[in-house]
Amino acid sequence: MTDVPAEALSLGVDVGGTKVLGVALDAEGSVLADARAPTAGVRPGQDLESAREQLLDTIARVVAELSGASTVGWKGQGEGQGQGEVQGEVQGTLPVGVGVPGLVDDKGVLRFAPNLPIASGMDMAQLLCGRLAGARVVVDNDATCATIGEWVYGAAAGAADAVMVTLGTGIGGGIVADGRVLRGANGFAGEIGHMVVDPGGPVCPCGRRGCWERYASGSGLGRLAREAAQAGHLSAVVHLAGGDPELVRGEHVTQAALAGDEDARAVLEELGWWLALGLANLANVLDTGTFVVGGGLVGAVELVIDRVRRAFDEMMEERHERPEVKILLATLGERSGAIGAAVVARGEDRHQADTVG
Amino acid sequence: MTDVPAEALSLGVDVGGTKVLGVALDAEGSVLADARAPTAGVRPGQDLESAREQLLDTIARVVAELSGASTVGWKGQGEGQGQGEVQGEVQGTLPVGVGVPGLVDDKGVLRFAPNLPIASGMDMAQLLCGRLAGARVVVDNDATCATIGEWVYGAAAGAADAVMVTLGTGIGGGIVADGRVLRGANGFAGEIGHMVVDPGGPVCPCGRRGCWERYASGSGLGRLAREAAQAGHLSAVVHLAGGDPELVRGEHVTQAALAGDEDARAVLEELGWWLALGLANLANVLDTGTFVVGGGLVGAVELVIDRVRRAFDEMMEERHERPEVKILLATLGERSGAIGAAVVARGEDRHQADTVG
Repeated sequence: MTDVPAEALSLGVDVGGTKVLGVALDAEGSVLADARAPTAGVRPGQDLESAREQLLDTIARVVAELSGASTVGWKGQGEGQGQGEVQGEVQGTLPVGVGVPGLVDDKGVLRFAPNLPIASGMDMAQLLCGRLAGARVVVDNDATCATIGEWVYGAAAGAADAVMVTLGTGIGGGIVADGRVLRGANGFAGEIGHMVVDPGGPVCPCGRRGCWERYASGSGLGRLAREAAQAGHLSAVVHLAGGDPELVRGEHVTQAALAGDEDARAVLEELGWWLALGLANLANVLDTGTFVVGGGLVGAVELVIDRVRRAFDEMMEERHERPEVKILLATLGERSGAIGAAVVARGEDRHQADTVG
Repeated sequence: MTDVPAEALSLGVDVGGTKVLGVALDAEGSVLADARAPTAGVRPGQDLESAREQLLDTIARVVAELSGASTVGWKGQGEGQGQGEVQGEVQGTLPVGVGVPGLVDDKGVLRFAPNLPIASGMDMAQLLCGRLAGARVVVDNDATCATIGEWVYGAAAGAADAVMVTLGTGIGGGIVADGRVLRGANGFAGEIGHMVVDPGGPVCPCGRRGCWERYASGSGLGRLAREAAQAGHLSAVVHLAGGDPELVRGEHVTQAALAGDEDARAVLEELGWWLALGLANLANVLDTGTFVVGGGLVGAVELVIDRVRRAFDEMMEERHERPEVKILLATLGERSGAIGAAVVARGEDRHQADTVG
């Protein structure tokens, strides 16, 4: 196996609150293999240390599976190879990029992880380096990884100025400016969901009021819909939620809108308006040429993308003096983060931990 | 004069709506000379072409004055030299940077200039190149120039991630990210004043509602004060405005606050809160390490800078996980834009027009 050129292949792992998703990537950006495992919740009575060990185990298991599978796929052999055997050798040669949900500092420490609380404070780069003996491990923010994935191989390929907006429970983001990934003073750039767009608006878990992600995310969609439902509208959506307006969630709206319900579509258009508002803010600050919208809500946004584009155009300062800004849907789907992490592993310049555990 | 090393000296000119201000800068950033001229208004009956010629004349006059004066200052001689004689020779050797108020595209064309309407659409780089025969002319946005001035020689010197916020009638801005000036897709980055921070707020001249500059600028301060005055408060401020609440402007508030009026100070603190809100938005997006607040309103902000810093700290997402963000006052005063333009002239990479007219 020593003839395997490590630079021709890297692994990327996207660590989420519900699943760990990994890919093996070749030098052209093709996914040679993927693997996934559920992110285990904390068991009753389980202590923090053991929950953290379990998380590291899950990541290591995905990496091991990828190492075996990808080598098999890549070398075109494999039936005769035991996975355990391949693991040890290949793990030592393939660089691994890991995207984690939260603020990652320039040492690779996950400083704050609201969607994966047990991981807050973990020195991910060091711990994973120890766990994946011999591998070069690079840790980065998951939204930044998704941005890099879409920028290098997805919807924003070739753009010098792009922002990726990941719409899930909240809003994540990553920024490419003047041909480079924008990092910021501490590596925390791209926390776009916490732009305040209405200081009198609903309270955000971050403690402030009216953050953008209270409007243009999955939880924002649910809130907009519950408000409409409580006012007596959205009967089809309420039906999908079991008849209780309080139980309406974003996916019920999307489901009803897909089935042609006009009221549900109107709520999605409201979401689209708020999405456009935040994009216009970002475009004024950054002079963005391309926006890529991804994340779990992308199917809902797709239904109203024309509305988003129209509202954005109306909102831009001096839009007649500006070339058109592209608002595109992500093309790599749920794998954008893992693909981006694999790109980061190939040679991005931060969070490297080259020692062997 | 042929022994004058051109690279050791450059000229910078800041073209504003009321005045044109120029400096001659040496290689260490010292101002060797400055010059100014009022920006002439359009005379009744004057056509656009002639008003534009007049603007170019004013800029050329300031450059000529600087060329003479700076050479005198720099060579340590001068009494015996006629200014006219020096002009022709030196203009041909010194690079000139020109900051203009509005969106400057990557060809040096001023696409939109709300505060200097006659200049909208002017190909400034080409026209000034023709006017300043022989000089290398570089045109850039005025707020970007001010940012570069403060970044290279002022309050943000040495910072890798800084945002300058220029508070005048509106809000201008410039961004330094990861050690470089952020330009954006069209060179328009930094239009931070038009971030919408309250979509139900007052109408902005840009056509939208609730832009940040409706709150945290000179015109925003006037509006906040008039609202308070119309509600029967701010008697000292209303007195300064001649007794009519409708005539209250931002400078009356600052003046009364400086004289110790508590009500006026409360309005400034409200301004400070809105300033902090926008800075927190920018810090979340960009992970800014240093903010520099400049512009005509800086004296007012200085009175409440502690309030601004405190409000900002309270607003930042996960502030305990972040190193402190500096909020500083500009140190170059009204010359930051001209100094930055002179820095741009030394070798920044855009809007160059090297031909001779």
